[in-house]
Amino acid sequence: MKGASGTEVNSRGGTSGIETILEPPTLVRKGTALAVLKRVNLLAESNALALDIGGSLAKILYLQPIERGSVEKRLCIDFLEPVATAHRSALSVEVPELGGTLHFFAFETRNIEECVKFIKEHWRPTNAERPNVIRATGGGAYKYCELFRAVGVELSTRDEMACTVAGLNFLLTHFDHEVYSVNISSSTQIGSPNPVVQRNYVDPLPDPYPYLLCHIGSGVSFIKVIGPNRFQRVSGTSLGGGTFWGLCRILTNCKTFDEVIELTKHGDNSRVDMLVGDIYGGAYEKLGLDANVIAASFGKVTMRKEPSPTWANFRRELRRFVVGTASLFIHLLIALPFLGNIFRWLGMERRAHGTLSNVYFSRHFRAEDVALSALRMVSYNVAQLAYLNAVIEGVPRIYFGGSFVREHPFTVSAISYAVDFWSKKKMQALFLVHDGYLGALGSFIGVDWTDSEQRVTEESTTSTCLSPPSRLNSELGVNCVSGRSHRRNRRKKSGDRSIFPPKTTSELSPSPLSVENETKQYLSDIPLPPIVDSTHEKREGWTQIARKTRTLNRS
Amino acid sequence: MKGASGTEVNSRGGTSGIETILEPPTLVRKGTALAVLKRVNLLAESNALALDIGGSLAKILYLQPIERGSVEKRLCIDFLEPVATAHRSALSVEVPELGGTLHFFAFETRNIEECVKFIKEHWRPTNAERPNVIRATGGGAYKYCELFRAVGVELSTRDEMACTVAGLNFLLTHFDHEVYSVNISSSTQIGSPNPVVQRNYVDPLPDPYPYLLCHIGSGVSFIKVIGPNRFQRVSGTSLGGGTFWGLCRILTNCKTFDEVIELTKHGDNSRVDMLVGDIYGGAYEKLGLDANVIAASFGKVTMRKEPSPTWANFRRELRRFVVGTASLFIHLLIALPFLGNIFRWLGMERRAHGTLSNVYFSRHFRAEDVALSALRMVSYNVAQLAYLNAVIEGVPRIYFGGSFVREHPFTVSAISYAVDFWSKKKMQALFLVHDGYLGALGSFIGVDWTDSEQRVTEESTTSTCLSPPSRLNSELGVNCVSGRSHRRNRRKKSGDRSIFPPKTTSELSPSPLSVENETKQYLSDIPLPPIVDSTHEKREGWTQIARKTRTLNRS
Repeated sequence: MKGASGTEVNSRGGTSGIETILEPPTLVRKGTALAVLKRVNLLAESNALALDIGGSLAKILYLQPIERGSVEKRLCIDFLEPVATAHRSALSVEVPELGGTLHFFAFETRNIEECVKFIKEHWRPTNAERPNVIRATGGGAYKYCELFRAVGVELSTRDEMACTVAGLNFLLTHFDHEVYSVNISSSTQIGSPNPVVQRNYVDPLPDPYPYLLCHIGSGVSFIKVIGPNRFQRVSGTSLGGGTFWGLCRILTNCKTFDEVIELTKHGDNSRVDMLVGDIYGGAYEKLGLDANVIAASFGKVTMRKEPSPTWANFRRELRRFVVGTASLFIHLLIALPFLGNIFRWLGMERRAHGTLSNVYFSRHFRAEDVALSALRMVSYNVAQLAYLNAVIEGVPRIYFGGSFVREHPFTVSAISYAVDFWSKKKMQALFLVHDGYLGALGSFIGVDWTDSEQRVTEESTTSTCLSPPSRLNSELGVNCVSGRSHRRNRRKKSGDRSIFPPKTTSELSPSPLSVENETKQYLSDIPLPPIVDSTHEKREGWTQIARKTRTLNRS
Repeated sequence: MKGASGTEVNSRGGTSGIETILEPPTLVRKGTALAVLKRVNLLAESNALALDIGGSLAKILYLQPIERGSVEKRLCIDFLEPVATAHRSALSVEVPELGGTLHFFAFETRNIEECVKFIKEHWRPTNAERPNVIRATGGGAYKYCELFRAVGVELSTRDEMACTVAGLNFLLTHFDHEVYSVNISSSTQIGSPNPVVQRNYVDPLPDPYPYLLCHIGSGVSFIKVIGPNRFQRVSGTSLGGGTFWGLCRILTNCKTFDEVIELTKHGDNSRVDMLVGDIYGGAYEKLGLDANVIAASFGKVTMRKEPSPTWANFRRELRRFVVGTASLFIHLLIALPFLGNIFRWLGMERRAHGTLSNVYFSRHFRAEDVALSALRMVSYNVAQLAYLNAVIEGVPRIYFGGSFVREHPFTVSAISYAVDFWSKKKMQALFLVHDGYLGALGSFIGVDWTDSEQRVTEESTTSTCLSPPSRLNSELGVNCVSGRSHRRNRRKKSGDRSIFPPKTTSELSPSPLSVENETKQYLSDIPLPPIVDSTHEKREGWTQIARKTRTLNRS
């Protein structure tokens, strides 16, 4: 189903440039991740991989070589479950000049130890004296460093913020059909259940700076970027994707992030949130707040009265006890080895997911409404913080990246609505197709791999390795693997290594955009690959090519 | 216990001016609220009352006349349960010149219909032609207007924001020992379990403007105040007290806000929150983020693995089923009429509150840790939004009001820490003793009651009634009811009605402090009582008296 809808997204995009978002791409399951690892032969192809191991999700970028002689170019993950295929079709890009296809996939970090254990069981280091080096970023690259080392893999760790910014800068300046905004229909108010959103793709900007990147992973970072290698993490919040998924995991009976996202599609948060109308009995006209504006997330829960101990209420409590015990018993049946699969097949698990974990409130509040309330709470809050930081930093654009958004229509529309609302339509939220893979992409392009194909110490990588993998420097053709019409535009000149010249870190001047009386210190100790050409012509050339490609596809 | 600790707060404050916060004051229970209503005789004394009916809490300000001839001045709520007495001792002020004592109390709005029903059953209107008018503000003043009307009470509704600002301005310019900041001990880091906080009382400022009021009720409003009757609601968020209590009500088995607050005292949020150390295995040194900084609220929940269906795990599931069923059965026993009280007396209810409502996670996460995590999440977030808005609006001070804070040490320390952290110690969070009663106080003082003791229509009250109750204009002595050393300083000149001259609403000029290129429109249609004297000498006189009083008390 997800695969089919993914195709629908693609076909629409190809004709109009405006897409209706239908389904978010899905995570690769643990079994799939292990199967991919088995096929890839990690230790032989370590230079084709880049990792971004975050708090909740581990993102993998993998360049798969084309198998010569095969009639149909099949990807290793084609042979795996359909969920993975849907994910591939949404995000993979075939690059013949690279000699392969770039795949982006992710699995949950809590399974990483099993993955590493799997590597240990299946492979032995090819050369004990020269360990296989994989580029990696994110907190997990430091935390699980020893774990990987034990199986003969050396993680060449890179700074997370630097990689994320490098990845985004690369996308912004080189990819067409990557950045999009959404049109929110007039009926999409805070509190309304079903947003209809349409994507509008934005042309790559020759000079996207300055901008604010709001990177929503487990936590949230607000990064002000004023040039190819000049950025500063200006703020952050602990209320991000981890909060949403963590809360929903306790509040509902869902077992994966995707199950929660699936739940929210049928939700109506106005059954859980306290609206202005619930307090005022109508609109608060003096402040221009409509009756359906959310006054307090989860506020309706506080409005429910505690039942007084009467016999009538006791009968209700008795019914709850029976329902609650039955719910627990269903979970017990599903947990049965072997037999549990039969109950799952009968749809008992799915039915269980639709109920709140709190049996006392499960009659009053539906799990889907609670999940949507949590999603909107986090989305609105992050968007508001992003807007306020953008005003303070004086930047005109906000890009929303990180694995929380993942093209989910409710998240996208909530963030867009909030930015529209607070900025009075002066600012627009911008989203990315590869939003979750900025760090992995930055890690992949952020080191000149073939020149330094040796054990790269952490010190040297973070201070000198400024060039991208050399193969990226050749002229790259673009050929989408699936029917998806995302056109990626690659570098113009073949073998032009000067496109990524290694630069020494110069002292960075403070931004003219910064607020008065506030000292800004840019992270001069974290140099970034200077991905964007200094000559304006080159960039313009790319944009022209991108436009031509699109015009051709449309005609 | 609460009464005793309340006294301790008072005695410490009297000697040093610095207090260690021990216990937050407690809400008046529904039974107490009804009993107060019974004693007060609402319909005979309606001019002694002011209401602020919010989304979660209804706040009541009541002026109780002194009963002549009684040896000991007893308050009506003295005769009620100790919880109410503790609350009174913390907040009530005896004002002989007013001929009575000002009491502040609150109960949950979800019980308001029962209170009104109670009025209907116990009293008949004294004069059918001239209904009793009670000053009221908050959304409920509009929503429950008809409900009150049916029992012969006319609510004279006032704008919520205007009353809140009027109440705060009155406190800031006239009350000593009202505003406080807290010293956070060096060990109080984000993530640390037990903050030790000390209150430092701030002298009343002769001219507190401009400032930002962050009013945390069910939802949150950020109001910029630039003069006695010039303010603007610049922003707001749905993530406030209603979210905290709503979330905790589903997540835990607590039945009241106070039970949750009590729970948080034994909590350790680092067991639930994903810290930087959980992602990085240590600090993220490049950004200066310690290992114990919260990266994602509720993030540790996402890190728990789902058990695979094995027989070993099934035994665990079986244990959970038994524990879960037992927990449900305990709730059923407590819900029994009459017999339930015995189980409550045996402490079964309290034990039930200490567990998560989700039986699958109740073995891994404690209810107190989850509640503290929610409290910190909301507190940090509100403080961060307040700070960002203060920067944008260019105001140097932030006051935190509303019923969410309620002197709870964790809330106070979390907000203080966050403002310190984001402003790099350039800004300080300021709290109020009567934080929850700003609206009720503003509603009480916002109308010249004796001059217009007739049915005041909504139109006329919001446009012309600018003077406070006339009795406030006489010289007011200060005499604290309990041992509490709060010294309230009242107006200097006896019978000086010019202190509250009725002013016509003039056109308001935009603030010089506002951000460039942004049009500010102050709410000129909501005039406020000009509480502050125009002459600087008068104010200075008050401050001097306040200082003298304190010096006397210390010596």
